[in-house]
Amino acid sequence: VSASPAEIPGGHFRREIAEQPDALRRLLANRDEISAAARALAHRLPDLIRVIAHGSSDNAASYGMYAFGMLARRTVFRDSISLVTYYGVDVDLDRSAVVALSQSGRTLDVVDYVERTRAKGALTIAVTNEPASELGQAAEIVVPLAAGDELAVAATTTYTNQLAALALLAAMVGGREREVIDGLQRTAELQAESLERIERAVTPVAAPFAFVGRMYVTGRGVEFATAREIALKLTETCRIAAEPLTATDLLHGPVAALDPLFPVWVVAARDNAPAAVIEASTRARAAGATLVASGDAAAEIPGASFVLPVPSAPMPILAPLLSIVPGQLFAAAVAKAKGLDCDRPLGLEKVTLVA
Amino acid sequence: VSASPAEIPGGHFRREIAEQPDALRRLLANRDEISAAARALAHRLPDLIRVIAHGSSDNAASYGMYAFGMLARRTVFRDSISLVTYYGVDVDLDRSAVVALSQSGRTLDVVDYVERTRAKGALTIAVTNEPASELGQAAEIVVPLAAGDELAVAATTTYTNQLAALALLAAMVGGREREVIDGLQRTAELQAESLERIERAVTPVAAPFAFVGRMYVTGRGVEFATAREIALKLTETCRIAAEPLTATDLLHGPVAALDPLFPVWVVAARDNAPAAVIEASTRARAAGATLVASGDAAAEIPGASFVLPVPSAPMPILAPLLSIVPGQLFAAAVAKAKGLDCDRPLGLEKVTLVA
Repeated sequence: VSASPAEIPGGHFRREIAEQPDALRRLLANRDEISAAARALAHRLPDLIRVIAHGSSDNAASYGMYAFGMLARRTVFRDSISLVTYYGVDVDLDRSAVVALSQSGRTLDVVDYVERTRAKGALTIAVTNEPASELGQAAEIVVPLAAGDELAVAATTTYTNQLAALALLAAMVGGREREVIDGLQRTAELQAESLERIERAVTPVAAPFAFVGRMYVTGRGVEFATAREIALKLTETCRIAAEPLTATDLLHGPVAALDPLFPVWVVAARDNAPAAVIEASTRARAAGATLVASGDAAAEIPGASFVLPVPSAPMPILAPLLSIVPGQLFAAAVAKAKGLDCDRPLGLEKVTLVA
Repeated sequence: VSASPAEIPGGHFRREIAEQPDALRRLLANRDEISAAARALAHRLPDLIRVIAHGSSDNAASYGMYAFGMLARRTVFRDSISLVTYYGVDVDLDRSAVVALSQSGRTLDVVDYVERTRAKGALTIAVTNEPASELGQAAEIVVPLAAGDELAVAATTTYTNQLAALALLAAMVGGREREVIDGLQRTAELQAESLERIERAVTPVAAPFAFVGRMYVTGRGVEFATAREIALKLTETCRIAAEPLTATDLLHGPVAALDPLFPVWVVAARDNAPAAVIEASTRARAAGATLVASGDAAAEIPGASFVLPVPSAPMPILAPLLSIVPGQLFAAAVAKAKGLDCDRPLGLEKVTLVA
């Protein structure tokens, strides 16, 4: 008799990583609300889209800047929540839209921000796995993530479905809906096809990392969201102090802290691999850091000790849906090697309720 | 015969920390170009101000969001440089202004961003310590930082003068010029008066931190810039992997990585001390982390082992000009305790030239 996922430490997390292709297909099959949000954006024509979130959702927000920029030529930025909710700054919001990302829909300051900005005239869109939540009720339009139940504390399906929801919304606004729907269908296939191969590749890398205390995770452009999300996964499930840095920011100071016990993970996409990422890798290697390279251009990183390639995405903007997978599987493997239960990290709850 | 600062490891860094009050007074005495930038902003009335920078300058950019929000009710955000320079995304820039921060004025992608956005109609303002630099030539308006020669690799005077320049520019746009000029004059006095006391306070804290490998630095709202800058100073001069996190983000995952060998620095301002900062401190302490509390509300942080208070600023938005000082002096003291030369961190140059 095999144990159920709930009985194996990290069983939920591992199972949910594997569920991502199905979760993505569910989102594609249930995209009416994304269309409604796109129509509202087309009708109200905001100059500015303010994205707000915390944790993994905020990593997805980083992706949103690129999705809207590249697919719809629209300006999106991660707004300061405390400027609105804590300092009560009253900026002009008539020509703004708000996209609020929260898996649970219960993050207090995100709900508060949406209530305040909606009252002042902003078009508010909630992207959440819990449409009936406080956030779902606070926003004018609700996009359900359709990710299914996510039982591990560390987000996986909700993160990748947030990326997909943002890409779809941007594509609809930018008139590229068909291309992105087809691309996401193909991405789900590529995720499913590559999962086992990636899992086999990460396992031997995990053991040497069981005693690592600190890491940098670097990426650039669309893959900076991936670097942030890999770093957060390693921090919360493996208790590694993993900090995300753009390749350029790594060179602006932190490279000075590197040594042979301080590995660097490089997310290298064909789309973003050149100069800065290669130079950051070379300088990190020169400082003695062990390099892990992932992404579809992982093989191009000079001096990498561990190479974890992923399939190329059908469109560059969809690469982060594939390049996150080695990070998730690596986190699961390192947690297992350290005897940690990544379904229930120390001191964390699934929903962070804080003002 | 006493050695010159150049002959003592870290001598430039220590001396430049102490020069900050004079540097601030020089900026105040040479504010014509800030007035010119404010007039241009009033004339062109951009809806949006895009700030771009790397490293310490990017930490100042975080402050810019709050300075413009609180003093002028204007929306400022840190734009993605790579979206414009690398992906070539062509967003509408007619109603945008750009504020580019670079101490040297030689950061390649910052110069490239300014050239491209100026060509597309944005009002471009360079804030730099080198007005004759490439950046100074690329922008329509140049604001000189007047910080004097900064010889240590780690920025000090240029960072605090960037904060002051942003506060002044926002105040001029928001019709609060007199109040902020008076506030900055008083801030320079408070910096000068408190320096020796803070230096005496950090010295005994430095020795126990000589073997610390990783830290979080947390702050909120206007003090998030301070948390980022303290973390960068500790990383580049002391080789500590110090990651900045908002109090809320610390609770959304990274708290799980804490243990007794993983200290947390809390920047607590009266302005931003409540709920989230206290809760983050309490949870970090519960995980066994040693707490260092600084800021004018340092005494309010429960369970702090080390308390480094600073004088209260004349206006809450000016607090970061005072609250950065314990971080700078602490970095100098820890570097000395570790035998590192913080004037010349390993693998860093004063100017980071990377595409």
